[in-house]
Amino acid sequence: MTDLNHTKSQFHLPEGLIYLDGNSLGPLPKTASKRVADTVENEWGEMLIRGWNTAGWMAQPRKTGDRIARLIGAEPSTVVMGDTLSIKVYQALASAIDMRPDRKVILSDNGNFPTDLYMADGLLKSLKQGHELRIVEPEQVAASIDDTVAVVMLTQVDYRTGRMHDMAALTRKAHDVGALVIWDLAHSAGVLPVNLTGCKADLAVGCTYKYLNGGPGAPAFIYVRPDHADTARPALAGWLGHDAPFDFDMDYREGAGIDRFRVGTPSVLQMAALDAALDVWENVDMQNIRAKSIELTELFISEVEANCPQLGLASPRDPQERGSQVSFTFENGYPAMQAIIARGVIGDFRAPDIMRFGFTPLYIDEDDVRKAAKIIGDVMRDEAWDRPEFHQRSAVT
Amino acid sequence: MTDLNHTKSQFHLPEGLIYLDGNSLGPLPKTASKRVADTVENEWGEMLIRGWNTAGWMAQPRKTGDRIARLIGAEPSTVVMGDTLSIKVYQALASAIDMRPDRKVILSDNGNFPTDLYMADGLLKSLKQGHELRIVEPEQVAASIDDTVAVVMLTQVDYRTGRMHDMAALTRKAHDVGALVIWDLAHSAGVLPVNLTGCKADLAVGCTYKYLNGGPGAPAFIYVRPDHADTARPALAGWLGHDAPFDFDMDYREGAGIDRFRVGTPSVLQMAALDAALDVWENVDMQNIRAKSIELTELFISEVEANCPQLGLASPRDPQERGSQVSFTFENGYPAMQAIIARGVIGDFRAPDIMRFGFTPLYIDEDDVRKAAKIIGDVMRDEAWDRPEFHQRSAVT
Repeated sequence: MTDLNHTKSQFHLPEGLIYLDGNSLGPLPKTASKRVADTVENEWGEMLIRGWNTAGWMAQPRKTGDRIARLIGAEPSTVVMGDTLSIKVYQALASAIDMRPDRKVILSDNGNFPTDLYMADGLLKSLKQGHELRIVEPEQVAASIDDTVAVVMLTQVDYRTGRMHDMAALTRKAHDVGALVIWDLAHSAGVLPVNLTGCKADLAVGCTYKYLNGGPGAPAFIYVRPDHADTARPALAGWLGHDAPFDFDMDYREGAGIDRFRVGTPSVLQMAALDAALDVWENVDMQNIRAKSIELTELFISEVEANCPQLGLASPRDPQERGSQVSFTFENGYPAMQAIIARGVIGDFRAPDIMRFGFTPLYIDEDDVRKAAKIIGDVMRDEAWDRPEFHQRSAVT
Repeated sequence: MTDLNHTKSQFHLPEGLIYLDGNSLGPLPKTASKRVADTVENEWGEMLIRGWNTAGWMAQPRKTGDRIARLIGAEPSTVVMGDTLSIKVYQALASAIDMRPDRKVILSDNGNFPTDLYMADGLLKSLKQGHELRIVEPEQVAASIDDTVAVVMLTQVDYRTGRMHDMAALTRKAHDVGALVIWDLAHSAGVLPVNLTGCKADLAVGCTYKYLNGGPGAPAFIYVRPDHADTARPALAGWLGHDAPFDFDMDYREGAGIDRFRVGTPSVLQMAALDAALDVWENVDMQNIRAKSIELTELFISEVEANCPQLGLASPRDPQERGSQVSFTFENGYPAMQAIIARGVIGDFRAPDIMRFGFTPLYIDEDDVRKAAKIIGDVMRDEAWDRPEFHQRSAVT
């Protein structure tokens, strides 16, 4: 197996727990506690207002953006941190719509994370310009891209099943008809070898609390292709995206390049935790991460399928079409997942019937996978899953 | 003098420093270090994903909102935390515009903080619906409110001079002609006895890192009057404002009341620091805060004016028209402020010529004010402020 064990020791993993939910919230990197405490006590506590310059708080969203750029195949100075993923989706879409004023269709799919669709819907309702949010099946996206489409807005990896879109092919197809593409990398960043520069994506957004382990409430990122960044209108035109924020001009004047996509004050404590989490990546090759991710998910599928005939694989069987999670359908998935968690394997449940397990190669190894599969097998064998109360409980979740 | 000294001991204030910049970033409340460390190590570290429910992370933005509601004269369940102030200004304005579809004027003044105006301008440019952002002198606001105005959007206290708007009178005037009012309470919350319920404000927003001492990057708040909250469209329609976020519906359905103004994942570490900071307020009466604030600013003005004939008072002389800051104009204000800071009194400078000092009654007392005024007097006497290099340095800031 691909060896990444030197990174496992860099995380605090509670004793006796196998954590297969890093696709929802990554665990605590050991250095993050100290880094956050230092930011609170020595920076906020001692520097007070001077921390914005002396401790570098003001520059942090760009510095951290550069560290993330390396992990998603982007050039330096193309990524900046801030806000939440929902806000960055909105900003990216509002900006992209502005670049295609003559087209009215925003194309997405029903495998997108709901908040992306909600934010788009909220934006279009504000605009009142006759745009349509067209939502198709994931398999129909390619065929639905035509020259009425202004923006294709997709999440690369489906949060329920782990099904992956082909970023390069769909981006090329969109560009062929003059549409722009926004990629949401929530379930990609930190676990897949994304190549934003290579696939010529127009904009991309993502969160940092999943495979990047930035902690609960960690800031989001936004990528804008360099040839758009100097002309794009950032839509959320906050003072920290202004060309000279501390001139306090009455009029907004966009900053250069990606800087204009900053909005308000950065979340300094969250940025500190995230920056510590990114230290883990210093000597990690994303191709090795991907190789190990495939080994782990392949092993998990074969072990679970050998022991749990009740579970149906909901993820693509071909690892090339799958992100770093494995999902199974089971009608009593909710109580079954509660029973599995009670025995120390943490996955999660997504309505109506999805049991979801995420594999973060930085701290999950073959031994964890075998143990987890055994516990899942034990739960599925031990419990009387055909008892009527389970059916009732399942029905109300 | 009004006695609030029991709260001073609750802050970490670096030895030998008099901190008159709490109107920009409040100091570290002593309990915040431990609270943040506990959130990092015992919640994120040990609970992992379970922290959202077990540690109450998901409920925190509403719980903290209720604590802030009490400090700004709002009813429980009318305030929620999230995002940054810039984002909340945008959300409030987009939502308000939607409630007045037949009117096209957004009225503000040139004493508003620039990012409020930038965000409004960015929104109107996206909408392309013929709205006008009309910016007048602060003194002209009342006379400029007529029945073409959809929304009056103002910051109560001018960030440069501390000049205060009369919230009750302007809100009444706006309502008389059918306009809505959004108040930005950035320089009010935690230092003035705001009465949102009493003045019937439609929406209000504010930050929590100034007089509320929530720390660098602390989340913002938004207030929506209860009779608007169940019908308003939140514009930034994120999943945590959905009626049932974990149903993962394809369609957005607004949550009840103020809940719908939530957007994305809350910044859990920042929320922890803010919640600790709010403990200081448990037994504090805002009327006492205001009384002491006036005593401190009156004393400061008289001491500085007695010693520094070069400085011109930029703040209103009448304390009833002034927030909790005192500003002076001085053509060499930038280097003069640097010299004052070097001697241990921290204020700040705002272009082109404003020296700004903020007074937070929770931890600033009469002794601090006398010492600060003496040091400012010493600096103004000692330095050769008519030397040409100061004029040059001043010119380039």
